[in-house]
Amino acid sequence: MEKLSLPPLRDHCVRVKMLAAPVNPADLNMIQGTYPILLPLPAVGGNEGVGEVMEVGRGVTGFRPGDWVVPTDAGFGTWRTEAVCGADDLIQVPKDISLLSAATIWVNPCTAYRMLHDFQHLQPGSTVIQNGANSAVGQAVIQIAAALGVKTINIIRDRPKREELVQELRRLGADFVITEEELQREGLDRVFQEVPRPKLGLNCIGGISGGLVLSQLNDGATLVTYGGMAKKPLQVPAKSLIFKNITFQGFWMTQWKRQHRKDVRRLNSMLTVLCELVRSGRLTPPKCVQLPFPQYSQALNATLQSHQRKHVLLM
Amino acid sequence: MEKLSLPPLRDHCVRVKMLAAPVNPADLNMIQGTYPILLPLPAVGGNEGVGEVMEVGRGVTGFRPGDWVVPTDAGFGTWRTEAVCGADDLIQVPKDISLLSAATIWVNPCTAYRMLHDFQHLQPGSTVIQNGANSAVGQAVIQIAAALGVKTINIIRDRPKREELVQELRRLGADFVITEEELQREGLDRVFQEVPRPKLGLNCIGGISGGLVLSQLNDGATLVTYGGMAKKPLQVPAKSLIFKNITFQGFWMTQWKRQHRKDVRRLNSMLTVLCELVRSGRLTPPKCVQLPFPQYSQALNATLQSHQRKHVLLM
Repeated sequence: MEKLSLPPLRDHCVRVKMLAAPVNPADLNMIQGTYPILLPLPAVGGNEGVGEVMEVGRGVTGFRPGDWVVPTDAGFGTWRTEAVCGADDLIQVPKDISLLSAATIWVNPCTAYRMLHDFQHLQPGSTVIQNGANSAVGQAVIQIAAALGVKTINIIRDRPKREELVQELRRLGADFVITEEELQREGLDRVFQEVPRPKLGLNCIGGISGGLVLSQLNDGATLVTYGGMAKKPLQVPAKSLIFKNITFQGFWMTQWKRQHRKDVRRLNSMLTVLCELVRSGRLTPPKCVQLPFPQYSQALNATLQSHQRKHVLLM
Repeated sequence: MEKLSLPPLRDHCVRVKMLAAPVNPADLNMIQGTYPILLPLPAVGGNEGVGEVMEVGRGVTGFRPGDWVVPTDAGFGTWRTEAVCGADDLIQVPKDISLLSAATIWVNPCTAYRMLHDFQHLQPGSTVIQNGANSAVGQAVIQIAAALGVKTINIIRDRPKREELVQELRRLGADFVITEEELQREGLDRVFQEVPRPKLGLNCIGGISGGLVLSQLNDGATLVTYGGMAKKPLQVPAKSLIFKNITFQGFWMTQWKRQHRKDVRRLNSMLTVLCELVRSGRLTPPKCVQLPFPQYSQALNATLQSHQRKHVLLM
């Protein structure tokens, strides 16, 4: 933790006091240099978080002191107490949602939202299948899909307190929860007596787990990969491409936001829908460990280990 | 070879005398039962070929005796001397192209044409990379791309008379020809000083060879798989999906034709373009071994072995 001087507040700038910022695995990848965004050093870590506007430059009309804001783009450096930045580096979030929701709404729920909207035309009764269903994105997928009337088939890894997790995901709105081992052993024939085969598969793991998602898709479906936790490539047999006509695409939230950052209306409309889901209790943040900022190394160490709850720093 | 009686010529039917029919690897897969189309038995083999209209039913207006025709769909059974079929099972081809061109125009050149038109918007100067560049489709890709002003990077397997094949493909219009081994050893840095990275990759092999195509693509490119000759899956690292935003799709000509068989204008417009390329000498059929129909088993046996020239039966 270092003390830095803030730059002067120029006309189109805003001074923000950070309130809360999560520690995400991608934040650590960025520090490790394995993420495709490398910041010039020295740099401040953290890509997500919520802050409060303290002061605005003379040319700023979109924000007032007291507003809550989140950084529009990755690379902001949210692990800090204060920042001075351009007004167009921020987007306002309403203050009638919890601090934890505000701090965690702009990466994972947005990823889930876009993947459910931008690849296949899903209707009430359509089915989506995903692995890593217990991840932060996975939980958001379950909740947003449930709000859309879209059925979810959720694959998790086997673990000691499996039934507890199954119940937790079911409470969020998961229609079906199955472990990788059960899926390999039993398939999903019984599930497909109740719901159609999925038009959309979401894969954040790759390797065998990605293949499990692929094998259950309907003809003409899309498999969207947004992570590679297993660090093993997806194995794609020619027949799933040629005869099942499955399309494989990737999704990277950071890239999407960079492409759409000028389209403020589109960003705001997504945020409005997500905040409405939060207010009505249909989108809750994943269970988090909240830590005061000075205990940041505990949060970073925990995030380096898998199967840990998300950690959020309170500034 | 069996003698069958032709069914009577109904009002909307046509009697066709087959003139020439290739033996393609997919024909053998269909007989082996490994192709996703299974015909009710007993069945006639062969999916491609040209015939001459001998007689038309009273309700047929689109064909006259003497016209050349090819079957619109797979499963026609072209390895026969005569057939009676519905008029809408046929499409007319002009008689001012060679018999060999007519017999081989409706599967492989169409596959090449569709892959060059339906996945990425290619412009003169754009680049396409393909493996299996010496296949019938690969040769059609080279020629159609050259006519469009699109540059091709063509990957072949190393072989005894390599330089001869390189020259052959160059004469067809190939801009760059490289063996898999050269590509693995040297990369394509020198090529990319002359042409942009490819927006489109075409893969008929899979496995390592498919990975070689993938690794050279530009960000945002599409990799189209239309075959799996290596019988090994394509290995797709998460980063090529997420950070390079590459889309993986499949193409199956049979499926495309079934989806568009009512769209006669679209079928004819593709055929018109291809025939015009044939007439102007810019699209030539692959070098073929022509055999009289009774020597069919020689043609079938040769096709079962790889690295053999295409065999065409003359009825």
